[in-house]
Amino acid sequence: VSPLGRRPGRPETRAQILEAARAIFAAEGYERASLRAIARRARVDPALVHHYFADKPALFLGAMRLPFDPRPVQEHGEAGRFSGFRVVQRFLEMWDEAQRSESSFVAVAQAMCASPAVADAVREFLGERIFRRAPGAVGDVPAEPLAMERRALVSSQLMGLAWTRYVLRLEPLASAEPALVARWAGPTIDRYALGEIDG
Amino acid sequence: VSPLGRRPGRPETRAQILEAARAIFAAEGYERASLRAIARRARVDPALVHHYFADKPALFLGAMRLPFDPRPVQEHGEAGRFSGFRVVQRFLEMWDEAQRSESSFVAVAQAMCASPAVADAVREFLGERIFRRAPGAVGDVPAEPLAMERRALVSSQLMGLAWTRYVLRLEPLASAEPALVARWAGPTIDRYALGEIDG
Repeated sequence: VSPLGRRPGRPETRAQILEAARAIFAAEGYERASLRAIARRARVDPALVHHYFADKPALFLGAMRLPFDPRPVQEHGEAGRFSGFRVVQRFLEMWDEAQRSESSFVAVAQAMCASPAVADAVREFLGERIFRRAPGAVGDVPAEPLAMERRALVSSQLMGLAWTRYVLRLEPLASAEPALVARWAGPTIDRYALGEIDG
Repeated sequence: VSPLGRRPGRPETRAQILEAARAIFAAEGYERASLRAIARRARVDPALVHHYFADKPALFLGAMRLPFDPRPVQEHGEAGRFSGFRVVQRFLEMWDEAQRSESSFVAVAQAMCASPAVADAVREFLGERIFRRAPGAVGDVPAEPLAMERRALVSSQLMGLAWTRYVLRLEPLASAEPALVARWAGPTIDRYALGEIDG
């Protein structure tokens, strides 16, 4: 065995794992994909997968080149209260930050359009990662009959802001500060998450 | 000259014109592209372009494989009043109809992500076709200081609904009737178009 053989530090190993993960997530979806199957496809020890990626969400973000974990976006604002303003502001700040990387919104959007399997995996991931959270999360009030509607509507407004800003590049949305966009669109998120929607 | 030589009915001629139009619109943008330049590139008489396509918007829709003219989407509802409900309903009905064609939302979105030039041309086209209309159109009230903001925000919510329905396919947005989605999202469009947005 060469001294470089199985060293955790080999950069190719990480790339191999990511490539295997992309294939398995696209084929199996997010929930059904197992780290074991990914390790097998990458021909590495499952422990090595854990060495590079803390958990399944982290591996998914890397494999799909998603620029950030969506969970903090929905964290509550001041005084623990949900704030549409904060959600919009953070969402755009995070995508703005990602603009300089290979995980730009345009790149992620293109991958989702190009492959329904990728779009399906992203949807499942969002479902698992942010929609099925402990009570207190957006729309996750028990016995809330419109929880699914609320989640889909919040997603629609956030995705549409990103689309208009980064792909269509329509002014003033293309270059306005996140906090200003949040003033315009925050109330929409508040209504979808907590207000009257089935009027 | 063969009897099929320059006959307006040749299907290749139409395809030739569309291919030339795609190249010219992507290179020059919507406003600067001229039908004459498109005819020259397609090596046909400019009159033939007019034979196949009534006007520049019609040629653009064909070239970019856009499934419908966006103008009717914003036409006023009953009693001439603007109705966010109607805008959402028509927008989704038209994209639903296009799902079966090569002009599906996913195909159009993918083309825009793949080429900034295509996205730029679409933005210019929307600007020309629906945003600079006669007074009475959305946000087109003279001296309305937030007109651009209103247009961009309306676009963001409509695009986000299409994204969530056709690309992310997140339920219940993926399969709800357009009229139901319009009940949820119509008030957002009303607020963006006519209400208080800079709170």
